[in-house]
Amino acid sequence: MAHLLSTSCSLKFSSGDKPYTKPLIQHSIAFPSSLTFQTSKTPFGRIILQGERSQSGTCTVRATTLSAIREAPNEPSYGVNEISGGASKPQRVMVVGGDGYCGWATALHLSKKGYEVAIVDSLVRRLFDHQLGLGSLTPIASIHDRIRCWKALTGKSIELYIGDVCDFEFLSEAFKSFEPDSVVHFGEQRSAPYSMIDRSRAVFTQNNNVIGTLNVLFAIKEFREECHLVKLGTMGEYGTPNIDIEEGFITITHNGRTDTLPYPKQASSFYHLSKVHDSNNIAFTCKAWGIRATDLNQGVVYGVRTDETEMHEELNNRFDYDGVFGTALNRFCVQAAVGHPLTVYGKGGQTRGYLDIRDTVQCVEIAIANPAKAGEFRVFNQFTEQFSVNQLAALVTKAGEKLGIDVQTTSVPNPRVEAEEHYYNAKHTKLIELGLKPHLLSDSLLDSLLNFTIKYKDRVDTKQIMPSVSWRKIGAKPKTVTA
Amino acid sequence: MAHLLSTSCSLKFSSGDKPYTKPLIQHSIAFPSSLTFQTSKTPFGRIILQGERSQSGTCTVRATTLSAIREAPNEPSYGVNEISGGASKPQRVMVVGGDGYCGWATALHLSKKGYEVAIVDSLVRRLFDHQLGLGSLTPIASIHDRIRCWKALTGKSIELYIGDVCDFEFLSEAFKSFEPDSVVHFGEQRSAPYSMIDRSRAVFTQNNNVIGTLNVLFAIKEFREECHLVKLGTMGEYGTPNIDIEEGFITITHNGRTDTLPYPKQASSFYHLSKVHDSNNIAFTCKAWGIRATDLNQGVVYGVRTDETEMHEELNNRFDYDGVFGTALNRFCVQAAVGHPLTVYGKGGQTRGYLDIRDTVQCVEIAIANPAKAGEFRVFNQFTEQFSVNQLAALVTKAGEKLGIDVQTTSVPNPRVEAEEHYYNAKHTKLIELGLKPHLLSDSLLDSLLNFTIKYKDRVDTKQIMPSVSWRKIGAKPKTVTA
Repeated sequence: MAHLLSTSCSLKFSSGDKPYTKPLIQHSIAFPSSLTFQTSKTPFGRIILQGERSQSGTCTVRATTLSAIREAPNEPSYGVNEISGGASKPQRVMVVGGDGYCGWATALHLSKKGYEVAIVDSLVRRLFDHQLGLGSLTPIASIHDRIRCWKALTGKSIELYIGDVCDFEFLSEAFKSFEPDSVVHFGEQRSAPYSMIDRSRAVFTQNNNVIGTLNVLFAIKEFREECHLVKLGTMGEYGTPNIDIEEGFITITHNGRTDTLPYPKQASSFYHLSKVHDSNNIAFTCKAWGIRATDLNQGVVYGVRTDETEMHEELNNRFDYDGVFGTALNRFCVQAAVGHPLTVYGKGGQTRGYLDIRDTVQCVEIAIANPAKAGEFRVFNQFTEQFSVNQLAALVTKAGEKLGIDVQTTSVPNPRVEAEEHYYNAKHTKLIELGLKPHLLSDSLLDSLLNFTIKYKDRVDTKQIMPSVSWRKIGAKPKTVTA
Repeated sequence: MAHLLSTSCSLKFSSGDKPYTKPLIQHSIAFPSSLTFQTSKTPFGRIILQGERSQSGTCTVRATTLSAIREAPNEPSYGVNEISGGASKPQRVMVVGGDGYCGWATALHLSKKGYEVAIVDSLVRRLFDHQLGLGSLTPIASIHDRIRCWKALTGKSIELYIGDVCDFEFLSEAFKSFEPDSVVHFGEQRSAPYSMIDRSRAVFTQNNNVIGTLNVLFAIKEFREECHLVKLGTMGEYGTPNIDIEEGFITITHNGRTDTLPYPKQASSFYHLSKVHDSNNIAFTCKAWGIRATDLNQGVVYGVRTDETEMHEELNNRFDYDGVFGTALNRFCVQAAVGHPLTVYGKGGQTRGYLDIRDTVQCVEIAIANPAKAGEFRVFNQFTEQFSVNQLAALVTKAGEKLGIDVQTTSVPNPRVEAEEHYYNAKHTKLIELGLKPHLLSDSLLDSLLNFTIKYKDRVDTKQIMPSVSWRKIGAKPKTVTA
């Protein structure tokens, strides 16, 4: 992220549990360009430092003490390691990219489950919206307010490290301070269209994603070698081969000999390619350094509510419906809500794996609770059902009928380079075997999702709906997308 | 390369053919941090601008006119495109990394064959030597002297663009100025041990190689869409699978269905991984943009002399024997020459493909003369014979005996993470089918290579011989390697 943000500032919230805090000091000081706020572990408990930088370059820092007394988790906890003597301590999970769509929902879910959670995020996803003139369907609170609200509602603290994992100095401090047992890495530029806007975004995506992940791997090796990396990949890494897609590896018999090898990848955007690069880098470090890693090749996520985010409006998750960050089913629901024809790209036979965001958070927790062995590079295909784009359009049309909405569908020229009719059969049994209970896409769920988008339909900017990024027309010159 | 060089300066030498030049102007001017010297195509011929920057920040620029008359190539030329009306013009080949070991030999070979050649190079390979305290066995002239010497001997000009392909502005100017028909891309950090020294070199290697190649792809798309990319990959991308290695693709029958897919890769250093990333990126752009590309998965290169480099000592190629940049057979010859035991890593059963540097230049020329079709991503395995490390040690021992040298062999702990005994059978027929006539490793060739190293043995720094980079011990802290 060094290309977009020249400074990094690490803000750490207390992990103490008492919501009441008492101001100690309030003072303005000169604020260097890179500064890490450490929470001291003192006999009085922890000290919170909160900083806000003004335009004049100074920063107001507020220091607060918190009691070291910690409440017991208030529900059956999966995030607990047994330690010698029968005592136990919660597993510590660092969620990189924890302010994003999947990351925020996951951070709350893990916190609720009894894990000690820290969010590491540069907040650049919010900057992308500003730069491209886009916005979430749902109003979303600042990460600071989100975390304060969560604490007020549940008594549970989430630590916050604001900074860029491409900045190794920042990441090192976060690792040394938080001491994670698991790192869930969502902290990547995650939009295929974004990576295809122009040369600089293509380069940014690959640099940011690949170098960020390399830094996470080095941080684990250097500071927490037993730490389990749970890395978000994508089903898009596989492309659409004419044979069944396996989970990460395939056994090949060739000229009379047999070996089990990495499944061949055919990614089709600079974003998807960055995830392939990551997978290859991670697999190497598992072999060379003994890193334990789970690569979650996730399908297209739909939905927005989880048990945790629906507790309060300040915990709202983001919901993207635009042509850059929005994904198929979510986009269709917004289009139906505002009376825009559903935008099917080309023939609409593109088939992919899909999952409910409630299953995203469940899958990540399953991966953490069942860690990879030292040196193991494990790949799970993380989705629950396959649909073609035409099938999704038909489902949304049917759901619209029930609500009295006349949903039209239109085929738009495909901005991507992809097969529009193809064989697709991807395996996805490993997470089921570990206990995943899928939320399948039922009529009632789709009704509820459509109703949700109708609730917020006055916030829709219809200029954002049509695709505006072309795989073939991407050029070298910088471009700002406005619909 | 932006991490190491903060400025880029493009110096373009004339492509006129008369060796005699007449000074026109000599004057000191202020020299901006980034400046492209364009050769004007005037009625008087071309104008050469040569600049030297002093420590005070000024630059002496010497301008010289050259006749536009061009001599006919003095040997049968393969680098000629037929154009309408029976006339022909030479193919224009940009050699990125043309100051390096394979790049320099290739640039001269192509120039000799009648191609119009430009070298694009940041010269960072020379900086690596300074930083790590390493040096070539052979004394090598500056790139400027090399090119002047070549011109004086053959009358052939090679244009020179000094700059970094990670700097897209520089690369764009080079493309627009030279207008290549083919780009041969050697311009990458090419040492596996270098990429495993420390975190910053690992990150540098992946950033430099991946982003540099992305920029080349964007430059082709933007400025020369018919241009053929000939990209140097490595046989190390495949690793050592337990099945035959095919050339880029493998046909897999799985659960009753069949598809031809990219051959699964198992690279084993951050360098080798960077080449896998490149291959995946290039394959995508062939599909999405219609780029024509040949990926040459090269084996380990040995030897130093080519028909062109041996014409004059100023044309000497570099010869690396150190633990970072030196490769197996070349290193063994230097070790034998100075009476150092041959350093076999571990059991020595590591088997790889090898080729003579005279075959490197031949293979690249074959690829250029037989370009890939628009949209085609073509992979050739570029080596001629397979050897295990133990076989190479035995061959050098035998060659030493003939010269009266008692060659010892020692097994050193393997600094790499790799199988030391494994199946290895890699296909390499495609370049043969296109006309490659291999220089196989004969006794006489090895005698000659050993004699060559003996000639320069007083230049050997024995501190450079032992491996000093460990795949397992790589850390996050910056490290300077000195043996």
